Amino acid sequence: MEQRFAELKGRLAEIHDLRRAQEVLFWDQTVMMPPGGGPVRSAQLTTLDRVAHEKFISDEVGQLLEGLRGYEDGLDYDSDEASLIRTARRDWEKARRVPAELAAEMVGAAAEAHDVWAKAREESDYALFLPHLERAVDLKRRYVDCFEGYDEPYDVLLDDYEPGMKTAEVRAVFDELKTELVPLIAEVGSTEPDEPFMSGPFDIDAQHQFSLRIIERFGYDPQFFRLDLTVHPFAASSGTQDIRLTTRYKEDDITSLFTAMHECGHGVYEHGVSQALERTPLCHGVSSALHESQSRMWENIVGRSRPFWNHFYPQLQGAFPGTLGDVEQESFYRAINRVKPSYVRVDADEATYNLHIILRFELEQEIFAGTLPLKDLPEVWNTRFEEYLGIPVPSDSLGVLQDVHWSGGGFGYFPTYSLGNIISVQIWDKVLAEIPDLHEQFEAGEFGPLHEWLRTNLYSLGRKFTPQETLERVVGSGIDAKPYVRYLKEKLGTLTAA
Amino acid sequence: MEQRFAELKGRLAEIHDLRRAQEVLFWDQTVMMPPGGGPVRSAQLTTLDRVAHEKFISDEVGQLLEGLRGYEDGLDYDSDEASLIRTARRDWEKARRVPAELAAEMVGAAAEAHDVWAKAREESDYALFLPHLERAVDLKRRYVDCFEGYDEPYDVLLDDYEPGMKTAEVRAVFDELKTELVPLIAEVGSTEPDEPFMSGPFDIDAQHQFSLRIIERFGYDPQFFRLDLTVHPFAASSGTQDIRLTTRYKEDDITSLFTAMHECGHGVYEHGVSQALERTPLCHGVSSALHESQSRMWENIVGRSRPFWNHFYPQLQGAFPGTLGDVEQESFYRAINRVKPSYVRVDADEATYNLHIILRFELEQEIFAGTLPLKDLPEVWNTRFEEYLGIPVPSDSLGVLQDVHWSGGGFGYFPTYSLGNIISVQIWDKVLAEIPDLHEQFEAGEFGPLHEWLRTNLYSLGRKFTPQETLERVVGSGIDAKPYVRYLKEKLGTLTAA
Repeated sequence: MEQRFAELKGRLAEIHDLRRAQEVLFWDQTVMMPPGGGPVRSAQLTTLDRVAHEKFISDEVGQLLEGLRGYEDGLDYDSDEASLIRTARRDWEKARRVPAELAAEMVGAAAEAHDVWAKAREESDYALFLPHLERAVDLKRRYVDCFEGYDEPYDVLLDDYEPGMKTAEVRAVFDELKTELVPLIAEVGSTEPDEPFMSGPFDIDAQHQFSLRIIERFGYDPQFFRLDLTVHPFAASSGTQDIRLTTRYKEDDITSLFTAMHECGHGVYEHGVSQALERTPLCHGVSSALHESQSRMWENIVGRSRPFWNHFYPQLQGAFPGTLGDVEQESFYRAINRVKPSYVRVDADEATYNLHIILRFELEQEIFAGTLPLKDLPEVWNTRFEEYLGIPVPSDSLGVLQDVHWSGGGFGYFPTYSLGNIISVQIWDKVLAEIPDLHEQFEAGEFGPLHEWLRTNLYSLGRKFTPQETLERVVGSGIDAKPYVRYLKEKLGTLTAA
Repeated sequence: MEQRFAELKGRLAEIHDLRRAQEVLFWDQTVMMPPGGGPVRSAQLTTLDRVAHEKFISDEVGQLLEGLRGYEDGLDYDSDEASLIRTARRDWEKARRVPAELAAEMVGAAAEAHDVWAKAREESDYALFLPHLERAVDLKRRYVDCFEGYDEPYDVLLDDYEPGMKTAEVRAVFDELKTELVPLIAEVGSTEPDEPFMSGPFDIDAQHQFSLRIIERFGYDPQFFRLDLTVHPFAASSGTQDIRLTTRYKEDDITSLFTAMHECGHGVYEHGVSQALERTPLCHGVSSALHESQSRMWENIVGRSRPFWNHFYPQLQGAFPGTLGDVEQESFYRAINRVKPSYVRVDADEATYNLHIILRFELEQEIFAGTLPLKDLPEVWNTRFEEYLGIPVPSDSLGVLQDVHWSGGGFGYFPTYSLGNIISVQIWDKVLAEIPDLHEQFEAGEFGPLHEWLRTNLYSLGRKFTPQETLERVVGSGIDAKPYVRYLKEKLGTLTAA
């Protein structure tokens, strides 16, 4: 039995190595590769993906998993071994359901649609994109048909990013959030006028040094991390001891600091996975929402807090004396927390961001329920956007065409962003209950105990348990919007107080 | 038949992608990876190697190759298709001969021996290294036993780096070189005293900019190349359009310029392989010696020539005015071409370098012929070193322990360095016959026609033909030491002339 388990583990390690190689090659492509390398690199990535997939869905892996049922029953549910078998079996059963031809067609369609989408967005031409969107939805419907036992088709899409999460559950949570948030934002409007100092200039090198200074307090260590430049920031990793973060800088924009904190949140999660899980399929954060809860926690709950800036603001003024030397800390604090309805999701503030997400979640469900014809999508988008955010959408470029996700068939991903926000406050409340002086620690520039708590209680678990089990273990309950609503109300309260 | 060929090509492309992924992961490990990533990266590299090897030596590939014999017979020998089948069959037959267990044992022994060798070199303790060297030789003997049809065992070792080359042929060429070189160097002694200006200071950033300025004339283009920093410079590539060079800088050493030219020589060779060969096993330089002929040609024949510096020296003075502003071009030229016997191969000048190689080649043969017991190796090394280079070896650190190669079982590699020198002049003579004004072009800073000639006549061929066939096609004959001896004599003549 133990030999059979060792064989399974060996095969899964090989597959995991191939997957990680893909991740490094993707990072290299984005960060380091000379532009001419593109076509061959795409072929290499496709090969690695196919070889890893073929090795995973093999009958041999299935037989090993089947043969290990008895062994698994004798193991502690919480053990690394039982978790490995359980998770690998779930992954295998899912991966086996999708025919290779459909998977290949989806990849091909996504590649074609991407360039058309980019052109359509540039020219604000929804009609150009429509046939590709129709194809993406059609392929995704065929993908849904590969599965069974779901309550509604959208469950299948959600499951790719948030395994086990049900659409109904997300709907309930988002409805609660929306009910509170729409009137709140309508009432608040914009919290502050534009502050000229937020346009800089902020020296690029000083931004880089300050980003590093902050995230080194969060757990970034050059022994295990890198921070490089890309147009679209992201986090990747080759293993728990090799974490790659990327960010971007603009002279007239200091929000790079928050980008670095956000990506570092993803990074410390991956870095904190138990080294005993290295080279197994358990060696990753458990889901998109849990991952996002960490990037958001470090970016927003920590990085946009008053205690954080009580520590860092004098240093920030020292780094940018010309621009911030005469700016009061409170003005800076309000500027970085400014609430203002806007069109583009990625530029949205912490509060209005969720309404962008809820809009997309609703539209995605209606598309897959068949109640929203795709040709009507821009009109429905614009109407509902104004209803939620109080401002009219000026063009499809700044509306329905703004995100890349749908061109690649990425339906079901959007909700995880706001689920991450919600979960981040649930976890935060829990940590604060166990370490009541966290804010005093931040004021002293001390973030180690927070990091350590999160590592012990969340990061180290990796993918050993389902996202639901993981959340339950960390906070003692399921997902709940109330703490996040309370957090937003409190924060908006302090911002609107004169 | 064409379908069978397409299937072979598809399988070989997949294997090639895995091999290239290994190369990118190795580059990343050396140039970019945070140190903590080491252990997992080693596992990933081992996995990629094993998966690629298993896929290549499969019966299916063998059956395809066998089934394509008739198809191959109907093809033009020079066609890409015939070359692919022919080369893949030779690679396959060779790869099938080595049992996986032996290959794995060699990899494991090399990993163990490396650290012991590093310690032994540091402490000049040959006895410490001896058991590992014995094991490496023993394993290599078992490796030789996997093959048949060779004239002497060393042929098998040579074949890994210089396919088809016979020991007897190398011996003849090296004997000729040695006969000329030993008395020549004994007569010349050192051509110049140490020049204080060669110790700098040379600003690091200015060295980097100047390296780029030179190699951009050689064919380096940021669209397809990178230049990064490592302790041990090398060239790697992900494909013909993605070439990675590395170099190093020291404030008291300007030879970084020659390192950049050397690695760029490797790079332009890989970059010049026909794009029609991309993602096939033909997509590489053909052998170590041919590769080295290109790095040496660009570094030495071009980069250490008077016409080259007639163009670049005024710019170099401008880049380092404090150090070189008052130094005559002729003094600089003589300093960078200084001949002086020394202990360490990698620091040796263009002329004495070959004696370091010939020594190693002779000792390797004697080891595998069983005529040189390993315990006597330091003594024999020291005696023969003094005989060839005229200076006594001060310690094993600066003698028999200086190179990493043997710790990894890399017997048979050394000769390719000098074979590269020899071939470089054969090719140079051929180009010069066809483009007689090359030196005038260099004086005008023009290196394009040389690059273009090499690309058309050598680089583009990749591995379509054997090294011998390739050389024959480029220069019209086999390997011949005479042109190189003539070149060295001429050069030494100009350096010793008052």
